[in-house]
Amino acid sequence: MKIFAYGIRDDEEPSLRNWKKANPDVEVDHTDQTLTPATAKLAAGSDGIVTLQTTPYDRESLQILNDEGIKNISIRNVGYDNFNFDDLADFDMKLTNVPVYSPNAIAEHAVLMIGRLLRRIPEVDVKFDNGDFTWAPTVGKEYREQTVGVIGTGHIGRVAIQMLQGMGSKVIAYDVFHNEDIEKQGLYVDSLEELYKEADVITLHVPLTSDNAYMIDEKAISQMKDGVYIINCARGELISTDALIAGLDSGKIAGAGLDVLDHENNVFGQKWGSIDNLPDPKIKNLAERINVIMTPHNAFYTETAIRNMIEISFNSNKDLIEGKIPDTLVYSKK
Amino acid sequence: MKIFAYGIRDDEEPSLRNWKKANPDVEVDHTDQTLTPATAKLAAGSDGIVTLQTTPYDRESLQILNDEGIKNISIRNVGYDNFNFDDLADFDMKLTNVPVYSPNAIAEHAVLMIGRLLRRIPEVDVKFDNGDFTWAPTVGKEYREQTVGVIGTGHIGRVAIQMLQGMGSKVIAYDVFHNEDIEKQGLYVDSLEELYKEADVITLHVPLTSDNAYMIDEKAISQMKDGVYIINCARGELISTDALIAGLDSGKIAGAGLDVLDHENNVFGQKWGSIDNLPDPKIKNLAERINVIMTPHNAFYTETAIRNMIEISFNSNKDLIEGKIPDTLVYSKK
Repeated sequence: MKIFAYGIRDDEEPSLRNWKKANPDVEVDHTDQTLTPATAKLAAGSDGIVTLQTTPYDRESLQILNDEGIKNISIRNVGYDNFNFDDLADFDMKLTNVPVYSPNAIAEHAVLMIGRLLRRIPEVDVKFDNGDFTWAPTVGKEYREQTVGVIGTGHIGRVAIQMLQGMGSKVIAYDVFHNEDIEKQGLYVDSLEELYKEADVITLHVPLTSDNAYMIDEKAISQMKDGVYIINCARGELISTDALIAGLDSGKIAGAGLDVLDHENNVFGQKWGSIDNLPDPKIKNLAERINVIMTPHNAFYTETAIRNMIEISFNSNKDLIEGKIPDTLVYSKK
Repeated sequence: MKIFAYGIRDDEEPSLRNWKKANPDVEVDHTDQTLTPATAKLAAGSDGIVTLQTTPYDRESLQILNDEGIKNISIRNVGYDNFNFDDLADFDMKLTNVPVYSPNAIAEHAVLMIGRLLRRIPEVDVKFDNGDFTWAPTVGKEYREQTVGVIGTGHIGRVAIQMLQGMGSKVIAYDVFHNEDIEKQGLYVDSLEELYKEADVITLHVPLTSDNAYMIDEKAISQMKDGVYIINCARGELISTDALIAGLDSGKIAGAGLDVLDHENNVFGQKWGSIDNLPDPKIKNLAERINVIMTPHNAFYTETAIRNMIEISFNSNKDLIEGKIPDTLVYSKK
């Protein structure tokens, strides 16, 4: 049995070596390149491929894989919106994903952003760099004094709730789908309006759907408490950047933690030499603020997450090759 | 009834105003100066004083207070080692302190330091300042993969344990005095050696005693795991700075979070213009490292802590003036 892997990064290689050691019956070859018509032939002789990319999986690449008899595709991430299922149907291909690789990684990133904003750590850091070892004026706020509104109680939101409760915060939650445990704890409020009205800190843990794009807009922000903190480690398109900037300008919003941004692909994943060189004026505006913590969509980026992305995707691909149907199946004809 | 307060900082004034509003029967006057023979007369006509300073309370100042008939002293902090109890006895003065003002402030500062080190946030911050929005090589580690050794299970250590468990860490603990709840949870190990051997992260929450100065020395560090993280938000003298630097140099210690340092009074509380100008070469050595997070003994510095320091000290002073004996009494003749 042979698996060929695309887009393998340096940081994935230790996990890949471990998986190979644990699966000596599987021959594995890989490239750091993504799957394109030019690279598709590299997989010749394999029984399946493991891949990860944000660009579209085009029909021509899949055609070449098909011609080589390769029908089993396993992505190392969650989202498969860059596949055209009609192509998969035409070639009778099976597709798996990694539905959950580390809710903890993302939840703790959000919780750390909250603490860093509350304790004014960006300002303390600037003082430190200037050799200023005095206390004033960077008095912090404590987690236990905050009501945190968690929007979205899926895997990540639920871990975030557990962490915030451990830190001493009062948590309220909103989701259209109610989780039994969160329900039992009595954390749900009836509406977003109620959450906006009561929360000192708001953290987003919902997927992007056709209904919730720019849910955090001027109107939503106007319903929030003065001095609210907003955290987004979910999807950039959940927040209107214009409304966020206006809220920060007016002081309505005291600070923001942003791992994702609308139009982040213009900026993230690249080296600009300096914040001054960012090509997107709105993202640059946010990046320059001392009360905004911005990270390049790396909330997920932990050793555990990377290991799980490799292990789950390769295990899934091996299952497909062996004719099994793994839990991670997202497409199969009929 | 009148209370006079010394050493009031700007950040304490809102809490002081609130206390005055809640206690309209008490006349309160204050200065930003500390209690010295030159300022002692400012308290003339008062029934008690509230004070906070790290320098000694000299006999001459207390003599002046005594001559003004002032017998009730309430400090806004924990430590009263800068009083000579013989002087208090001679003048028949009573002294109260604030034994606990916010264990959460200090515990969360330590827990945040752990997360910032694990997720390599100082390195990510440098990349951000350089406009580098790529992921590699700053892969983080998650709280849930760590065994955290908490040394000291008093008020602060116990809150830290609760927070770390909420974040998903496995906690082990050591203290010569066993707390019932921590005992019940089965968290105690039998010796520091055992804790050093098992912990990926070690955080100190013990007071400084005659027995434990420089407890984290070359020998202790040699017993720790390779790649250990050490956090100190307790007292600087618990760690040998030389041993810490050697451990960081060798890579034995992966990182440190230090809110306190041996000889910190040489550096903290002042503005040096730049880290380059720090006058203590060992502290400068540590401050320059990307894997060391240093804060100027400000772990306690939250709105909640400041409010509690004001409220508890003023309530205690009022109690003393009214002839009551508050829980916070630390000295009274006979």
